[in-house]
Amino acid sequence: MTYIKRIKELRERNPLVHNMTNQVVATDVANTLLASGASPIMAYAYEEVEEIVDQADALVLNIGTLTHDVVTSMIRAGKRANKKGIAVVLDPVGVGATHYRKQMVQELFDAIHFTLIRGNSGELATLAGIEWAAKGVDAGEGKASGSQIAEKLAQEKGCVVALSGPVDVVSDGKTTYTVKNGHPLMAKITGSGCMLSGLCGAFLAGGKKDDVLERVLYTHVVFGLAGERAADSPRVKGPGSFRPALHDALYQLTDTDVLNHGRWRSLE
Amino acid sequence: MTYIKRIKELRERNPLVHNMTNQVVATDVANTLLASGASPIMAYAYEEVEEIVDQADALVLNIGTLTHDVVTSMIRAGKRANKKGIAVVLDPVGVGATHYRKQMVQELFDAIHFTLIRGNSGELATLAGIEWAAKGVDAGEGKASGSQIAEKLAQEKGCVVALSGPVDVVSDGKTTYTVKNGHPLMAKITGSGCMLSGLCGAFLAGGKKDDVLERVLYTHVVFGLAGERAADSPRVKGPGSFRPALHDALYQLTDTDVLNHGRWRSLE
Amino acid sequence: MTYIKRIKELRERNPLVHNMTNQVVATDVANTLLASGASPIMAYAYEEVEEIVDQADALVLNIGTLTHDVVTSMIRAGKRANKKGIAVVLDPVGVGATHYRKQMVQELFDAIHFTLIRGNSGELATLAGIEWAAKGVDAGEGKASGSQIAEKLAQEKGCVVALSGPVDVVSDGKTTYTVKNGHPLMAKITGSGCMLSGLCGAFLAGGKKDDVLERVLYTHVVFGLAGERAADSPRVKGPGSFRPALHDALYQLTDTDVLNHGRWRSLE
Repeated sequence: MTYIKRIKELRERNPLVHNMTNQVVATDVANTLLASGASPIMAYAYEEVEEIVDQADALVLNIGTLTHDVVTSMIRAGKRANKKGIAVVLDPVGVGATHYRKQMVQELFDAIHFTLIRGNSGELATLAGIEWAAKGVDAGEGKASGSQIAEKLAQEKGCVVALSGPVDVVSDGKTTYTVKNGHPLMAKITGSGCMLSGLCGAFLAGGKKDDVLERVLYTHVVFGLAGERAADSPRVKGPGSFRPALHDALYQLTDTDVLNHGRWRSLE
Repeated sequence: MTYIKRIKELRERNPLVHNMTNQVVATDVANTLLASGASPIMAYAYEEVEEIVDQADALVLNIGTLTHDVVTSMIRAGKRANKKGIAVVLDPVGVGATHYRKQMVQELFDAIHFTLIRGNSGELATLAGIEWAAKGVDAGEGKASGSQIAEKLAQEKGCVVALSGPVDVVSDGKTTYTVKNGHPLMAKITGSGCMLSGLCGAFLAGGKKDDVLERVLYTHVVFGLAGERAADSPRVKGPGSFRPALHDALYQLTDTDVLNHGRWRSLE
Repeated sequence: MTYIKRIKELRERNPLVHNMTNQVVATDVANTLLASGASPIMAYAYEEVEEIVDQADALVLNIGTLTHDVVTSMIRAGKRANKKGIAVVLDPVGVGATHYRKQMVQELFDAIHFTLIRGNSGELATLAGIEWAAKGVDAGEGKASGSQIAEKLAQEKGCVVALSGPVDVVSDGKTTYTVKNGHPLMAKITGSGCMLSGLCGAFLAGGKKDDVLERVLYTHVVFGLAGERAADSPRVKGPGSFRPALHDALYQLTDTDVLNHGRWRSLE
């Protein structure tokens, strides 16, 4: 990872990130984007999603509380985003849980090229065709390692894949990084993965094809560091106080923090 | 109430609670469940709710911002949950406010057997056919006592009923308990009742037919105590800071706290 | 502005405010209303909105994540509210962003008379037919001043208009006030405008035709002051901790604070 001041760049650019996300996390995703320096817009209506994409710098699709109407809108938005050339992020929330989610994600894959797929090991194993015991929207259990899952899926889909867990993995199918920043409290609040997907959209805004991997890696270090900072705060007594502290930390974090405290490395 | 370590049991079991809840409280219900040691999943699509129920340990139906599509999905999910034998909780938010809500709840009653109905006095009086002046989704005013309402409804529906108010009442129609734990700030944040309904689902997971009343009672003591702890925190200056503190308290609470500070008693 | 104890009045009246708002901010709007002393109800179903309006003291329509079904319900609710004579507030979130939003708002204007339209400069300029470069749901940039926009729109629509920005403007087309209370952190959390719209509904409840301007002005001073108080709190370290502190401040604020610290003036 070359040292580029991505946080500074994001705050100066103030990218508009179009989120089609689920009803559980919409508020938190919007606040994550605002705290980081981006502008969120949530829009779902079929009639308007193309026009929103025309103004947006990135599109983030999250299938958390999906209905078929929303999938139809997502396909319309995703096609437009592909044509425009902006980053499109997929967060396949709980895709291992039901056949319906698998089908809907397949419809998305058939119509849209994704820049990034970000999820937990259970979700990504399901998409990579690796046997896995999912548990609702949680990671569940299986035998493959995070890097095996991420690399296989990245190769199959021809995009960057990011896997969240105790150690995060980011891969384009050839080069793979692990990120050790983060804190267990992140798994004790709802939507931390969804917030990270939104944040990836923000950091991918304005990027090029050849810096996607580096930008996604950077985002994971940023979000993990924010989690560490929040958890270290004397104000934090549990998941309730952790959530506002996480947004505060994102708001305060600098590129120097990433340089000094990022714990990522390339897998050989 | 026999002394069983229900919090410890819940954290070890980490039950999956399927919530079909309203758009105002979805985030808070999910965070409540996570803070307590359960795993939340929110899913509404008709195509997938049965498969979600197949994985879930409890189902919680909340009619706060109902549309007919969601009722259809709820009926499908509830029938499956009954067949599977897991607990089904109904939170009839604002049922006294409109004929539509009454009709929709009637449709739910016609199709589903509930393990627990939890609401405020206005909602439960409406369901019990007791005259009451509701005010939106608030409790409103009427002449019957909490125990009269809860007992009548429990007898009519053949299930446990829990009534939230300054003093909570939990009854199966024969045995009735009151719980005095809690704090007035709980009524100054949206969704505290909805969070409690979700939490009841979590504590009912893995239960038997004959321990429903005791588990619901336990849940009310736990949630009330969490409210007291949160309100006592020097960090809390009003309802804004109370909300995260409530989740922190739920996260920290132990069965010993329940044993030492629970204020519940059986009505003679 | 005559000195009337509007906060005291609101807390004593505890008005029921019917919100048809967007999925991003529903929780925060409900908590804003509760913190201020009002009771929120969110209801969208076509079948029930008239009955909810019959019980409500004000109706707030917010187009943030609009679908056509909701517009149909909004029209039904708005007509009933007009007939009943309660205040109807429009928050035209992101109306400059898409033709669809413009059309939907036109449908609302064709059917409903609004007591108040509240938005940012980009949204209100769009409605006033003033050239403007919107950015998603943010204010964007243009040449007209806030007072020019607010006055033109108020004259055209025959209602009070409130424009939020670094300096707020409230106008009925003849008399125009500016409000300098507020804090930049309010723009770093999602939904602060939506919360203010909800709060305007609460303060308009029980009002008369000739005190709308004064009540809206009062609300803007209250909300701006709450933002200042929250930002001044030593507990606040960024937008994450600002949000709960804002609700705490609303909960604590008194009419004396408004009298002593309100910074509003009439434009000559």
